[in-house]
Amino acid sequence: MSLIHALLGKPLATSEERAEHIGPIAGIPVFGLDALSSAAYGPEAALTLLIPLGMMGVAHIVPISFAIIGLLVVVFFSYLQTIDAYPHGGGSYTVASENLGSTAGLFAAAALMIDYILNAAVGISAGVENLVSAFPSLQPHLLAICLFILAVLTLINMRGVKDTGTAFLFPTYLFIGSLLTVIVVGGIRAIVAHGHPTAIVAPPQLPRGTSYLAFWLLLKVFASGCTAMTGVEAVSNGVNAFRAPTQKNAKKTLTIIIVLLMIFLAGIALLSRAYSIAATDPTSAGYQSVLSQLIAAVMGRGWFYYVSIGSILAVLALSANTSFADFPRLTRAIADHDYLPHVFRIRGRRLLYTHGIYALVGFTALLLIGFGGVTDRLIPLFAIGAFLAFTLSQAGMVIHWKRQGGPGSIRRMLVNGFGAVATGITLLVVLIAKFTAGAWITAILIPCLIILMIAIKRHYRSVAQQVAVDHRIDTEHLVEPLVIVPLDRWTRITEKGLRFALKLSDEVQAVHVDAEECCREVQENWRRNVAAPLLEAGRPVPELVLLGSPYRFVVMPLVDYILKIELERPERQIAVMIPELVVRNWWQAPLHNQRAQLLKLMLLLRGNQRIIVINIPWYL
Amino acid sequence: MSLIHALLGKPLATSEERAEHIGPIAGIPVFGLDALSSAAYGPEAALTLLIPLGMMGVAHIVPISFAIIGLLVVVFFSYLQTIDAYPHGGGSYTVASENLGSTAGLFAAAALMIDYILNAAVGISAGVENLVSAFPSLQPHLLAICLFILAVLTLINMRGVKDTGTAFLFPTYLFIGSLLTVIVVGGIRAIVAHGHPTAIVAPPQLPRGTSYLAFWLLLKVFASGCTAMTGVEAVSNGVNAFRAPTQKNAKKTLTIIIVLLMIFLAGIALLSRAYSIAATDPTSAGYQSVLSQLIAAVMGRGWFYYVSIGSILAVLALSANTSFADFPRLTRAIADHDYLPHVFRIRGRRLLYTHGIYALVGFTALLLIGFGGVTDRLIPLFAIGAFLAFTLSQAGMVIHWKRQGGPGSIRRMLVNGFGAVATGITLLVVLIAKFTAGAWITAILIPCLIILMIAIKRHYRSVAQQVAVDHRIDTEHLVEPLVIVPLDRWTRITEKGLRFALKLSDEVQAVHVDAEECCREVQENWRRNVAAPLLEAGRPVPELVLLGSPYRFVVMPLVDYILKIELERPERQIAVMIPELVVRNWWQAPLHNQRAQLLKLMLLLRGNQRIIVINIPWYL
Repeated sequence: MSLIHALLGKPLATSEERAEHIGPIAGIPVFGLDALSSAAYGPEAALTLLIPLGMMGVAHIVPISFAIIGLLVVVFFSYLQTIDAYPHGGGSYTVASENLGSTAGLFAAAALMIDYILNAAVGISAGVENLVSAFPSLQPHLLAICLFILAVLTLINMRGVKDTGTAFLFPTYLFIGSLLTVIVVGGIRAIVAHGHPTAIVAPPQLPRGTSYLAFWLLLKVFASGCTAMTGVEAVSNGVNAFRAPTQKNAKKTLTIIIVLLMIFLAGIALLSRAYSIAATDPTSAGYQSVLSQLIAAVMGRGWFYYVSIGSILAVLALSANTSFADFPRLTRAIADHDYLPHVFRIRGRRLLYTHGIYALVGFTALLLIGFGGVTDRLIPLFAIGAFLAFTLSQAGMVIHWKRQGGPGSIRRMLVNGFGAVATGITLLVVLIAKFTAGAWITAILIPCLIILMIAIKRHYRSVAQQVAVDHRIDTEHLVEPLVIVPLDRWTRITEKGLRFALKLSDEVQAVHVDAEECCREVQENWRRNVAAPLLEAGRPVPELVLLGSPYRFVVMPLVDYILKIELERPERQIAVMIPELVVRNWWQAPLHNQRAQLLKLMLLLRGNQRIIVINIPWYL
Repeated sequence: MSLIHALLGKPLATSEERAEHIGPIAGIPVFGLDALSSAAYGPEAALTLLIPLGMMGVAHIVPISFAIIGLLVVVFFSYLQTIDAYPHGGGSYTVASENLGSTAGLFAAAALMIDYILNAAVGISAGVENLVSAFPSLQPHLLAICLFILAVLTLINMRGVKDTGTAFLFPTYLFIGSLLTVIVVGGIRAIVAHGHPTAIVAPPQLPRGTSYLAFWLLLKVFASGCTAMTGVEAVSNGVNAFRAPTQKNAKKTLTIIIVLLMIFLAGIALLSRAYSIAATDPTSAGYQSVLSQLIAAVMGRGWFYYVSIGSILAVLALSANTSFADFPRLTRAIADHDYLPHVFRIRGRRLLYTHGIYALVGFTALLLIGFGGVTDRLIPLFAIGAFLAFTLSQAGMVIHWKRQGGPGSIRRMLVNGFGAVATGITLLVVLIAKFTAGAWITAILIPCLIILMIAIKRHYRSVAQQVAVDHRIDTEHLVEPLVIVPLDRWTRITEKGLRFALKLSDEVQAVHVDAEECCREVQENWRRNVAAPLLEAGRPVPELVLLGSPYRFVVMPLVDYILKIELERPERQIAVMIPELVVRNWWQAPLHNQRAQLLKLMLLLRGNQRIIVINIPWYL
């Protein structure tokens, strides 16, 4: 226990809940890492598609980035309104199911679950790939490092929300600080140099290229850049993790995250154009990421460069943590509606929805192993879930404002409606652009998950109908059961079982299956040690039943006999007494036959409501 | 079931036992394959050590082979006498433990178990290596082929003794026939040519070499050649597998096997000298086995050569089967003396000691995987067990005759005593010659196994002392138990459990652990649906106990409470009613909490004799 305490912290009482709540300072690492770290791969993904256009392509990044920032602003205002409307956590799932009906809610649920799992896998693999490109000797251990980081994240998260925020504070603020420094210093240099600053370390020379941008390519660039928006949903889903005033703290946190992300996106786009920095081909030898070129151009390759790159690696890997913070909350909300197993509602020893963490870790590990820990193979499955959730959430908010009415509701409906249309179009673009590359997997998985969730709900409803009652206990027919005692040889264990049977009921049968041809001995023992003493004491003598077993099976004839008696005696419950030897050490278990276990299993599988099993433990 | 029937045959009734017994024709493949196939590697192993002596070394093989044949004759007569003295199977284990005491018996048991497992592994790997050297493209799949052959052998053996004999008849007699043909034809040619026949396909020319044979080398050659004697023990251990007249059939089978083996050894030695055939270096490119050279020299490389080589490969691989025939019988005999788990005594659906087969297959697979399926790595561990068993068996027989007395006992004691000394010396030579190469593993394993067996015996004896009685049932104090019913919410399941509790006893407690803060609701329900109706019916009302749970644990507080009650009420048995939901499909299981299972486990681990668990199944 003390090892578990040291690793996971002491258990928390339900009454300690308030102390686990966080403010904006800890909230940014917990809920913002996903959104902020995407500044490191969103612009890069867009610029990579612009490589064929050479130097002219770089110029296009500014308007595209500002389009994305515009979309981000729309989504931002939508979620600010959502936090107001849903103070106990209003993720897309809640908003969609409350306003658009349960089917839309299930779509959001499936989309978000898949996206959170993918986010964990992509975050870890992207971080590790950056690490590996810095230290190529680690290449053969790629997958092992991914799984190791997953294990560390799991351990940190099993300690709880507050400890997680504390652990991630330093790398998160180091990342924010260094990126802001680069943008401010680079911006001042650019203004001083009238838009044409001189790079300290010059980026690779670009071919002139063409300025012509085809519409289809434009859409693809926009779609790729939109990966920068994943993770924005997290705060609104986790509102109730914040300390009072809950909504105000959540909104403050969301605002800081979005403003920082906008600064990053705008700064990266503007500085890239100013310094003529384009993406390089990731498959060629001279590959260097856009951020790496940018930092080197503005600040040179000194200690600052290495600290910044280090913080980017750390933040990418830790961005997986957003999934840890939100996925268990999401599955809890879905399980509350009976669409997922109820274990997701149980809070573990540290007040966390532990089973949600187990599920997340399990599926993430499967994804990492299945795709070999390679980010490129995972990316096409990604972002679809996020944009489906955005669209459903904002469409849901339109209905919400329409229902609520009152002053300003028309304006709000317009804002959310515009957002829904914009993110909906983006969703279509992303789906079409990535379909053959892997998006089809997500497109198949979502309906499968929905079918599964509906089946689970149906099961729970049928169970509830069968067992839930508010009726008075039936006080009639409280007659003793017929007790059946399987009898092997006459030992203390059998004696104990038979004595307990005699305590429970006046009608007892002892059944011996004759697999070893020792009938006579059993009968003789019975007469001498059971029948005679009971007769003397004036008590009814149980019946001894002998069953033949030509094929030396023991359990099957017994089960058949019990089922036969059950049919013959419809008015009685049948209690089967199963003596069980409890060994002191695990290694002793194989020394004794496991027939008791097998009999219990067979009775459970083939039995019915009227057959009850009584375990008589015998401790050695 | 029908698939199992097709693979393993229909179940056999105990009364069908007689039909499963075999005669000498089927007995030779079942019990003789190990001994006979060793003719294919024993002489080869001896000649390999004589390579440095060149042509002169070949001459030495004849006296050494005849020394081994002499030893074989001694062992043969010893086992003939053993079959007479032990008509129900007198392996070394039985003979040693009955005549030399249980410690000697345990030595024999450990030695034989290890040797049988090694024999299975070596037989399969030697066969597969021959196959692989014929078809080098199979080399990467060496281990997989070994495991495949092991699986096929397992399947054949699970059908039973008689089917096994039938399956192996053809390759065994093909092997015997072709080897006898080579020896007869070669012998006639040698006599006709006055001892210097001309080879049809000439073996490689030998250097003249030296005729000087150092004493140490002589001993090593002798020790290596003695591997030809492994497997001789099998018949005497399996006497009761033969049909009546049992002993006569067993002795006939043993005689045929030994005579064939002697002819093989003598023939191979004499023909090797006549044709000047020496071993070749197995690590060099031109490697060819002695038997291959011999057959080619006598019969040429026609169809006969390929048929013979094929039968040698088959017989080597199938020689593993001796282990399948004898190992389960051995473990059964050891388990009869409580030195191994009693499952080894249970006869399965085909009248076989199925668990012995499982154990053999498991350990053989482990050995094959651990040593990569390479014969050379396994050989040094081998033969020690066989000679330890020979020595103990014959020493035991000396005591047996001494005790029996009567005419001829002195002569018999002398024969067995001579055999014991001869095999004992051989054992020492083998152990010393192979110690550093791997024999130390066997030397460590044997005492470990003995310690394990003694621990098992001690456990069984302590259990027997605790449970076995021949006393009359205690008819006093047959008072109803105190019944505890864990109560979550008021459902049909709880109602059923409570009703059953009321049937069993007048003292019932319902215990609610308040992990979800719904105390008030539970109390209200209890008052309305339980207390009121029971009062009206004039029955005692069970007590409702509420337990707090600040850390949201459910099972632990319940177990603690039950143990507390158990301490407070030393005069009553405590019956804990555990309602259990039985789902229709396996996939529904994760939808319900597994607290019932956990509670049962905790009560079993922390409970005691007075706490009894009653399972109330609820079928959906």
